[in-house]
Amino acid sequence: MTYEVKSLNEECGIFGIWGHPQAAQVTYFGLHSLQHRGQEGAGILSNDHGQLKRYRDLGLVSEVFKHPADLENLTGEAAIGHVRYATAGGASINNVQPFFFSFYDMQLGLAHNGNLTNAHSLRRELEEQGSIFASSSDTEILMHLIRHSRQDTFLAKLKESLNRVKGGFAYLVMGEDKLYAALDPNGFRPLSIGRMKNGAWVVSSETCAFEVVGAEWVRDLKPGELVIIDDEGIVYDRYTDDTQLAICSMEYVYFARPDSVIHGVNVHAARKRMGRRLAQEFQHEADIVVGVPNSSLSAASGFSEESGLPNEMGLIKNQYIQRTFIQPTQELREQGVRMKLSAVSSIVKDKRVVMVDDSIVRGTTSRRIVQLLRDAGAAEVHVAIGSPELKYPCFYGIDIQNRRELISANHTVEEVCEIIGADSLTYLSLEGLIESVGIETDAPNGGLCVAYFDGEYPTPLYDYEERYLESLKEQTSFY
Amino acid sequence: MTYEVKSLNEECGIFGIWGHPQAAQVTYFGLHSLQHRGQEGAGILSNDHGQLKRYRDLGLVSEVFKHPADLENLTGEAAIGHVRYATAGGASINNVQPFFFSFYDMQLGLAHNGNLTNAHSLRRELEEQGSIFASSSDTEILMHLIRHSRQDTFLAKLKESLNRVKGGFAYLVMGEDKLYAALDPNGFRPLSIGRMKNGAWVVSSETCAFEVVGAEWVRDLKPGELVIIDDEGIVYDRYTDDTQLAICSMEYVYFARPDSVIHGVNVHAARKRMGRRLAQEFQHEADIVVGVPNSSLSAASGFSEESGLPNEMGLIKNQYIQRTFIQPTQELREQGVRMKLSAVSSIVKDKRVVMVDDSIVRGTTSRRIVQLLRDAGAAEVHVAIGSPELKYPCFYGIDIQNRRELISANHTVEEVCEIIGADSLTYLSLEGLIESVGIETDAPNGGLCVAYFDGEYPTPLYDYEERYLESLKEQTSFY
Amino acid sequence: MTYEVKSLNEECGIFGIWGHPQAAQVTYFGLHSLQHRGQEGAGILSNDHGQLKRYRDLGLVSEVFKHPADLENLTGEAAIGHVRYATAGGASINNVQPFFFSFYDMQLGLAHNGNLTNAHSLRRELEEQGSIFASSSDTEILMHLIRHSRQDTFLAKLKESLNRVKGGFAYLVMGEDKLYAALDPNGFRPLSIGRMKNGAWVVSSETCAFEVVGAEWVRDLKPGELVIIDDEGIVYDRYTDDTQLAICSMEYVYFARPDSVIHGVNVHAARKRMGRRLAQEFQHEADIVVGVPNSSLSAASGFSEESGLPNEMGLIKNQYIQRTFIQPTQELREQGVRMKLSAVSSIVKDKRVVMVDDSIVRGTTSRRIVQLLRDAGAAEVHVAIGSPELKYPCFYGIDIQNRRELISANHTVEEVCEIIGADSLTYLSLEGLIESVGIETDAPNGGLCVAYFDGEYPTPLYDYEERYLESLKEQTSFY
Amino acid sequence: MTYEVKSLNEECGIFGIWGHPQAAQVTYFGLHSLQHRGQEGAGILSNDHGQLKRYRDLGLVSEVFKHPADLENLTGEAAIGHVRYATAGGASINNVQPFFFSFYDMQLGLAHNGNLTNAHSLRRELEEQGSIFASSSDTEILMHLIRHSRQDTFLAKLKESLNRVKGGFAYLVMGEDKLYAALDPNGFRPLSIGRMKNGAWVVSSETCAFEVVGAEWVRDLKPGELVIIDDEGIVYDRYTDDTQLAICSMEYVYFARPDSVIHGVNVHAARKRMGRRLAQEFQHEADIVVGVPNSSLSAASGFSEESGLPNEMGLIKNQYIQRTFIQPTQELREQGVRMKLSAVSSIVKDKRVVMVDDSIVRGTTSRRIVQLLRDAGAAEVHVAIGSPELKYPCFYGIDIQNRRELISANHTVEEVCEIIGADSLTYLSLEGLIESVGIETDAPNGGLCVAYFDGEYPTPLYDYEERYLESLKEQTSFY
Repeated sequence: MTYEVKSLNEECGIFGIWGHPQAAQVTYFGLHSLQHRGQEGAGILSNDHGQLKRYRDLGLVSEVFKHPADLENLTGEAAIGHVRYATAGGASINNVQPFFFSFYDMQLGLAHNGNLTNAHSLRRELEEQGSIFASSSDTEILMHLIRHSRQDTFLAKLKESLNRVKGGFAYLVMGEDKLYAALDPNGFRPLSIGRMKNGAWVVSSETCAFEVVGAEWVRDLKPGELVIIDDEGIVYDRYTDDTQLAICSMEYVYFARPDSVIHGVNVHAARKRMGRRLAQEFQHEADIVVGVPNSSLSAASGFSEESGLPNEMGLIKNQYIQRTFIQPTQELREQGVRMKLSAVSSIVKDKRVVMVDDSIVRGTTSRRIVQLLRDAGAAEVHVAIGSPELKYPCFYGIDIQNRRELISANHTVEEVCEIIGADSLTYLSLEGLIESVGIETDAPNGGLCVAYFDGEYPTPLYDYEERYLESLKEQTSFY
Repeated sequence: MTYEVKSLNEECGIFGIWGHPQAAQVTYFGLHSLQHRGQEGAGILSNDHGQLKRYRDLGLVSEVFKHPADLENLTGEAAIGHVRYATAGGASINNVQPFFFSFYDMQLGLAHNGNLTNAHSLRRELEEQGSIFASSSDTEILMHLIRHSRQDTFLAKLKESLNRVKGGFAYLVMGEDKLYAALDPNGFRPLSIGRMKNGAWVVSSETCAFEVVGAEWVRDLKPGELVIIDDEGIVYDRYTDDTQLAICSMEYVYFARPDSVIHGVNVHAARKRMGRRLAQEFQHEADIVVGVPNSSLSAASGFSEESGLPNEMGLIKNQYIQRTFIQPTQELREQGVRMKLSAVSSIVKDKRVVMVDDSIVRGTTSRRIVQLLRDAGAAEVHVAIGSPELKYPCFYGIDIQNRRELISANHTVEEVCEIIGADSLTYLSLEGLIESVGIETDAPNGGLCVAYFDGEYPTPLYDYEERYLESLKEQTSFY
Repeated sequence: MTYEVKSLNEECGIFGIWGHPQAAQVTYFGLHSLQHRGQEGAGILSNDHGQLKRYRDLGLVSEVFKHPADLENLTGEAAIGHVRYATAGGASINNVQPFFFSFYDMQLGLAHNGNLTNAHSLRRELEEQGSIFASSSDTEILMHLIRHSRQDTFLAKLKESLNRVKGGFAYLVMGEDKLYAALDPNGFRPLSIGRMKNGAWVVSSETCAFEVVGAEWVRDLKPGELVIIDDEGIVYDRYTDDTQLAICSMEYVYFARPDSVIHGVNVHAARKRMGRRLAQEFQHEADIVVGVPNSSLSAASGFSEESGLPNEMGLIKNQYIQRTFIQPTQELREQGVRMKLSAVSSIVKDKRVVMVDDSIVRGTTSRRIVQLLRDAGAAEVHVAIGSPELKYPCFYGIDIQNRRELISANHTVEEVCEIIGADSLTYLSLEGLIESVGIETDAPNGGLCVAYFDGEYPTPLYDYEERYLESLKEQTSFY
Repeated sequence: MTYEVKSLNEECGIFGIWGHPQAAQVTYFGLHSLQHRGQEGAGILSNDHGQLKRYRDLGLVSEVFKHPADLENLTGEAAIGHVRYATAGGASINNVQPFFFSFYDMQLGLAHNGNLTNAHSLRRELEEQGSIFASSSDTEILMHLIRHSRQDTFLAKLKESLNRVKGGFAYLVMGEDKLYAALDPNGFRPLSIGRMKNGAWVVSSETCAFEVVGAEWVRDLKPGELVIIDDEGIVYDRYTDDTQLAICSMEYVYFARPDSVIHGVNVHAARKRMGRRLAQEFQHEADIVVGVPNSSLSAASGFSEESGLPNEMGLIKNQYIQRTFIQPTQELREQGVRMKLSAVSSIVKDKRVVMVDDSIVRGTTSRRIVQLLRDAGAAEVHVAIGSPELKYPCFYGIDIQNRRELISANHTVEEVCEIIGADSLTYLSLEGLIESVGIETDAPNGGLCVAYFDGEYPTPLYDYEERYLESLKEQTSFY
């Protein structure tokens, strides 16, 4: 039996605001700039003097909020919003956040980015006590814990509950008179505080949202922190002191927008440094550098500057590809029909190309791009990857498929090189990655979680432990 | 009274195929790669052994063809398709092409890219003879001319009609047993012939579609040519010998995809050369080069290579912006809320930035981007434009608004520089543009139409003549 | 070879108004009350001081006009509207009326109810002169005739054109400063003039629209009349004197709403008289009368009053059936699953039932209803039909299918009775029908067209002549 | 302070089936015939060998299930379905049933028709124990009670929970291997068992669904019964013996379809008897009887037969009115524009009309219809109502608004007569209503709940008690 990383693992984006007369509108624009973190669904919950209101649906932010009235009904000076990652199967509006709870004694809103490692046990325990879950999402669990807590105050209930959930999480909780933001003890996911000119506080998964809404960055949340915002101002509290920074390194490699700054490091700059370092580690002759658009353009630029090779636009991405319902049939594909990327013959013809990409998951995409470049006349294709080999699954919030689907979990670099049809294949070293990011911290691995590269998870795995160990025993090839 | 260039001017994309069992599907993928040429509407007309069928609607190609059945019903081994430019107002499905005509004696399909300069006179003449037009588009005129022609054969009628329409046009005409492609006597618009592996002939506004459908480029249509394709093969005929190449220079500057090749010139390479030349003509001190995404990235790369200044990703474009129904209110905009572009502070802060863009039309966008860079901390912003000043309207198919809206028709370079708030403003010289493109031809201006820069139109203006001359007399400022 | 009545035969509804500040809104409510005459599509064209505007789409009136803005944009004090009959296949928005024509010298709107018998010849003649048709509908023909006419004035052109089209027609033509309404020389289709309290003139296919919009009936159009309405008032003109009333008898039998009055005869009252006369002609013993809902309830009521048998609600129609996309599979149907009608056991059990229906076309529906009643326990089912046997097709605007599909064109009354499984079958006599309607007129057949019953067409058949004669020769059975 | 009957009161329809290979399809057709009981939303939950699946949405059954695939995905041999009443405001898909619960140890489905009187207290009690509700509907409460129950077996938990909820309810609960149907101790709502030819058991709010799906009626559920259906067959169990039949009399008067049979009484026949009795109690001279379509046609027919006055179609209902988004403005309404009903002048002119309607709630509709008849020329309008005065709210599942909105709670018969502008007003006596229905039972009021007429509620009112008593004190007029 193979171990399956559950399909609900998600990379999402959250945004919150307190103290702006058009809170829902600002949240809309904030979510828009976080759209790259989730395209399946979106929602906003506003707080109008203690009265919460919500609108959510499947689709892009711009599809969910089509009519100005959709936003205008969300009155109030505070709001939280969420964009949800597109998982393969069970898209259901029930799982689109923020969640909205209406109790006899209070109303609450909840938005979550991350993945819990003890969700299964907690859910079973709660159901045995009579709890009924409205969604298949882990997010609801925090609310059930809060409502079952015997602590006296809401804040105490919330802290107790935050200590019970394990794994990666960034939460926004909207109460009737306060907005709470909490980060897990390892800070697996990014979460930053900013401030608008009118004094409104904003919280966002990425700082790129601050640029868009005209806010100034104030500071990033630290692991284990719980921030409380209300009309009196902001309080930086903690629910635990047992913390150690281990932010997801894939945020720097792939997820985050290049204009975001995470723990003091600009993502574009980090990627350029990865590209530079990769160029140092690269040991082949070549003529031009071609980045795979869009995520690898920064790394390609760094590679070019370090290597002195010209950085050329040898691959073009069709920018209208987002929502295409019709795909080429196998027959058409064999005849050369393809949609997302084109290689530019007049650029790559007879050239020895360094194709820079951020990562290799299954290998199928890389194989196709190498083939594209060869069909367009490239003399040689040397693949250079801006991160180490992906060998282990993630349990803290990103959807890296099970080990069977990770090509590097089952093959050596040489085998992968052959499978993808490249002339050479170079991965950035783990050390190179860590040094390229360069967070100012004393934490191990330079404050990064690099478990998908080295299998050293910074926390116990809880519900995943047993099945994970089993999965390590099997060696499956999938070609 | 001011002269108004009519709002129907359009830049569109057309694609045709003859001899493929899945002709409509291939056309779909071809249109997909031409999507940048028009986002208002799309349609495909197929030919199944003389029986024509059509499907069209408003929206992107992927929105129009949502269900596989929409394509599967378009059976047959030949097809033509069209993507239509998003004009401001009157979007009507009646104007979405291809047009489909069903007569007692034959069926015909028609797709058109370009703009006629004698459409008004011809339409009036035809209406006086009793003709009724189904759309407000100029495209229909050709069909009315054909049906009124007294020539004996369809080919003779078509040639006669092609000689009566004036201006810029690339036509695809689907007959029951033949596909016709025709280009205007100046070749204002691009049109190329390619061939698929199975022998099918394809015709496309841009060669980037050939990459996508797996076709080889055969050759570009020449001015005045009429190509006839049927089961017997391809015939390169002409309807006039009074020709002279004057292809729209804005195709190289802005419209075409960088991976397309037009008259032997790769667009990306041409743009890099424009950037290099611009760097030579540029006379200021600076620290970094920042291209305005996406159209100016090639020019910025050339500028960087020539100048030795690093090419940085100082501006980020939100890639999900395409279809956003909700825009920031004036109030939010003043508070700094913006959607399309963000400037990256950590990159531009305290830097003297060369902001490379392809062109300036009204100046409002440039002014906003300059401000963005300043807000993000840029020490200086030097604007470098990869084309000359836009001073005159276009009558051959691109939607360059009336002279009142062209900032350079009303202001000197110094004034524009001040209006957009830049520290300096440099335009590429006309000579520089022409040399950067470098088509192999003896035609004037290197085979380019540069009338929007110098006001020297390569043809009479017909219906536009009188009003155009009037418009030159007035000097209006619009700030 | 069988003769096929073309599928474009249509029964539609038209409504026009001149002189009301909310002309489009009133037209909307008028069309709503004519919805029973056509459910495929709807549209309204308004006239705002000579500027025509139109909105149309496929669907019910309430589906086409969903947003108040759809109507509010149709400004102006005059309007025409149209509801279109649901034909089986080629629903295309191109065929949805009113048609809107924009010429260099004028704008015109056009709405049409009826069917032309010389459409094919006229269309060919026009196309040979270079005309291009935008739709597959006959309606456009009138406009091409007008535009080709050499007469001096628009009125003269219109009159000449009305004399060239043959068959059944009620036209509304919206000019820039006048509204025209015209009826064919036999008055096959109904068309009435009314007046609102504010003085606005309204024209409608049926008077039931007058009740709904609060207008008073003024008078019906007479055959060959052309009414001209403008700000000066109304003028009753004629385009021909060669006329003779032959209004479609099926309007009284089935099409029209029971609250409409046509040529002085209330439809409900006419149906009650048909029911009474049918009871007189009926020669069997029975216990109760059951009308097939909804069209036969009036006739059943008359039958009951005349016969003294109680009128019971033995058949129930599901009022939510209109738009059901999912139908029972054959398998489910055999298990007794049915959607439209239910028989009420507690009413019909052990009773000898007179089932009153308005007409029998193919016989399949009748057979199903008889079976329903038997399944519900009816002891006997005597079918009584409120009109004579339908034996011949219609060429003037109603969609009575080809002779092959008319059960009475191929079978005797006894055979039909057996096929539908009834204990007896009684048709109303032709004389009975004519006397029951009772229009005050000297015209033959009491001013009714009864050609589908007796094959005596009141006009030449033009394009249909030859094929019709052929069809009479063949005798096909279809069971 | 005024007492508000909460807006969630609902009249719904439920349908269940066990043992049919196309269970979901049959449920679809069953729901279709129950559509009159709720038009806001619909859903079906199927059971495929213990695996539950659900599809639901806002809209009519035919709108929710548009594509055959929507049903085909609901595989399995058992299913339950629900149609939901259109409440004014908060339409949310969260409240559309059946509800679907997925626990670690089992899956359950739930559908409910009725209203609980102790919902507020139970919900608060459950929330205090940590329960979180997914919807604002009362229906969920039963499931929380079941999950909190300490009983050993599911059946025992269910019975205990059914004893805790008070008020009117008909429940369908789909377990993994059993279907449960339960009725409240007063049998306020109807629920019947039927059997299909293949042996499948069906449960339905009304027997009209049995006619549609080809099932035979077996018997009605009795108050306090709990029916358990599985592959072994059907068991009629009870959860309480403290029962007394008090079925909602408005089911006979207005809600149920005329072809349904409830507790042995055909609804059409009951309505005819109400009409006959009303004719006996009526004491005025008149010429014709006119029923208000559609619900009062049976009563009008009975009235006509008893009184000897002819039953005429003097009011016509537009059958396409269901979904109309655009309503006449106040201005147009004053000019006589109206949509739903028309009066037929040629029938009512100069006649003394008995207008038969089923009930008067606010009086506004009656006033409009009386006016319609007068505008159409009626000499006198005598209103005859087939039920007594509605004076008190309902707490068991029908949406009779608060006392302020019940005209008869605030006015005498004479006052109401004057308000609606009638020449006379006659209500059926309570005795007349009870005798006309005529259920065979010894229960008080002939087994009917008539609390809205006499204020004698058959059960304690629990959460409503206090506020109800307060409401009786105030006398508000609302004209």
